[in-house]
Amino acid sequence: ADIVVLEGDGIGPEVTAAAVQVLQAVATRYRHQFQLHRHLIGGAAIDATGEPLPAATLQACQRADAVLLGAVGGPKWSDPKAKVRPEQGLLALRKGLGLYANLRPVQPHAATLGASPIKPHLLAGVDLIVVRELTGGIYFGDKQRSDTSASDLCEYSVAEIERVVRRACELARGRRSHVVSVDKANVLETSRLWREVASKVAREEFPDVTLEHQLVDSMAMHLIAKPRAFDVIVTENMFGDILTDEASMLAGSLGLLPSASLGEGKVGLYEPIHGSAPDIAGRGIANPCGTILSAALLLRHSLGLEAEAACIEQAVAAVLDAGVLTADLAPAGEAATTAEVTAAVL
Amino acid sequence: ADIVVLEGDGIGPEVTAAAVQVLQAVATRYRHQFQLHRHLIGGAAIDATGEPLPAATLQACQRADAVLLGAVGGPKWSDPKAKVRPEQGLLALRKGLGLYANLRPVQPHAATLGASPIKPHLLAGVDLIVVRELTGGIYFGDKQRSDTSASDLCEYSVAEIERVVRRACELARGRRSHVVSVDKANVLETSRLWREVASKVAREEFPDVTLEHQLVDSMAMHLIAKPRAFDVIVTENMFGDILTDEASMLAGSLGLLPSASLGEGKVGLYEPIHGSAPDIAGRGIANPCGTILSAALLLRHSLGLEAEAACIEQAVAAVLDAGVLTADLAPAGEAATTAEVTAAVL
Ligand SMILES: CC(C)[C@H](C(=O)O)[C@@H](O)C(=O)O
Ligand SMILES: CC(C)[C@H](C(=O)O)[C@@H](O)C(=O)O
Repeated sequence: ADIVVLEGDGIGPEVTAAAVQVLQAVATRYRHQFQLHRHLIGGAAIDATGEPLPAATLQACQRADAVLLGAVGGPKWSDPKAKVRPEQGLLALRKGLGLYANLRPVQPHAATLGASPIKPHLLAGVDLIVVRELTGGIYFGDKQRSDTSASDLCEYSVAEIERVVRRACELARGRRSHVVSVDKANVLETSRLWREVASKVAREEFPDVTLEHQLVDSMAMHLIAKPRAFDVIVTENMFGDILTDEASMLAGSLGLLPSASLGEGKVGLYEPIHGSAPDIAGRGIANPCGTILSAALLLRHSLGLEAEAACIEQAVAAVLDAGVLTADLAPAGEAATTAEVTAAVL
Repeated sequence: ADIVVLEGDGIGPEVTAAAVQVLQAVATRYRHQFQLHRHLIGGAAIDATGEPLPAATLQACQRADAVLLGAVGGPKWSDPKAKVRPEQGLLALRKGLGLYANLRPVQPHAATLGASPIKPHLLAGVDLIVVRELTGGIYFGDKQRSDTSASDLCEYSVAEIERVVRRACELARGRRSHVVSVDKANVLETSRLWREVASKVAREEFPDVTLEHQLVDSMAMHLIAKPRAFDVIVTENMFGDILTDEASMLAGSLGLLPSASLGEGKVGLYEPIHGSAPDIAGRGIANPCGTILSAALLLRHSLGLEAEAACIEQAVAAVLDAGVLTADLAPAGEAATTAEVTAAVL
């Protein structure tokens, strides 16, 4: 299988290096051949080529079976007046590969409850997955800027809503058959369309799946007040961005959470949900688990290697249970390094 | 002083009745004359007049010193295809009165920590206030709908950003002089403008105030992970809607939180941040504290009656400390009614 590795910026190179080691260990143990191809994206690509997503990178990703990404961005490229920004590379990649469904599972581990700001009794048994629409909405609508004002257009088509809701309902069938669709239908026209289309898809195609609607402001509350109530959550791009960072607090650290971005084609993009964390970059202390678990999702969703994926997930769970934790999770003074956690997983 | 009372829908009549009793008690004790004028808004106004904000209501509010509002909306008026919706009345009122700055203070009480999903040690000493922009952004931009798509435009002008950031910085001066401005400047053009303007206002007009920037997704995390780190938070309309509902979980219940909406004129709008809660409407069990505390903000901000405002706030704190709690806060089987809590505050 051909896997493109995009290290990106900040801690990106450190966490992808860890995940690549794990992929190589899986290849050896299960006798697979993984061809890894490194390419540039984000700030690193801007520095080298002037563009956040060089054509060579996009083409390599389009030809690959799967893409593993670290993170993009950093203060070096964050001048609000800059013409090119690292994040544009990531957005163009998601769009260019047609990856409209971003899956972000959240399953707190017993060993990391201490690091969560949420009371432990609320977290027992939490097992939810957010399906975030990833190639539409205000992220991609027309943007305008004048001396005295700025605007961003949020747009959704029926087809864009249908396909991501369908994906969420399919996923729910393999789980607890419960989907909560999140919108702001009491204010936004796009949300009213979203609600109508979601209801229609569920009613006509998934009579066996229960669909409920929730306003995004209420959801920001319920997500932490009663997280066990949720199975699959489906929502538009911007709401999904906010709610998944919030949901990461259920798991104790953003550094633990993986994601899979899928479209109609075979190629998927796998990345931790954390950012490039410039404040800790280069120090060897970043949590590699989100990226390692993203590699597990890669094996499962793009390569169909379920046993291998489960093997990685069990290894990570065992390492957390054994208390080998990076600084984002460990009590002060007891933190393991990126290399130590990776070695333990291996 | 002339105070317009807008009961609205659902639990609106119950919670405003409680706050009106408290205002009348303050009038008696401190020898003030409060003229109360009741008007229609929301679903109740649609039923009576066909419009969510009848002209008579808006005019009465424009002439008043302050407006006290319950909540609007409910399933009866929530058909996504409905031409008029209760929420339009509230949005038109905010816009019609020019109330661009929505202040939402969050100060958890010791007595309600048990009801919060957040670990108590994180909540000790939390004292933050969100200043939410209230008359711009995607709430008020152009909305389009066709058979196959929908759109909402998010727009901000320099002047709109300046005035709300200025208000936040002024507020910070009377507190801990620390402002966090929340945006999504790595993706949105409006957020890049927001960040530039906020930086300029703080630098040129408030050199004594520290301004930091935070991306909205990170903020959704930090708000619950380290709530003590925040003093004043300023953000645009939609982000403020989401973050304040989330922040309410720090206090233990949405039902506790008041808000003040202010503009350049004298008239302010005071409302709890909760909705109309149709599921519990008419049962006499709603938490009146958010509305009673909104009445306190009314006395402080619109009538300049600081001692009276503080007196109400102390009474509510004492009632919570005494364990007189509605069902949203009380252990099962021990809940007080709306009337009991109100009587205790009186
Ligand atoms: C880096 C940024 C553009 C990105 C997003 O907002 O989608 C990130 O926050 C994420 O959640 O993947
Ligand atoms: C009812 C609704 C329109 C309103 C809003 O989104 O502003 C409410 O959620 C609030 O926060 O005051």
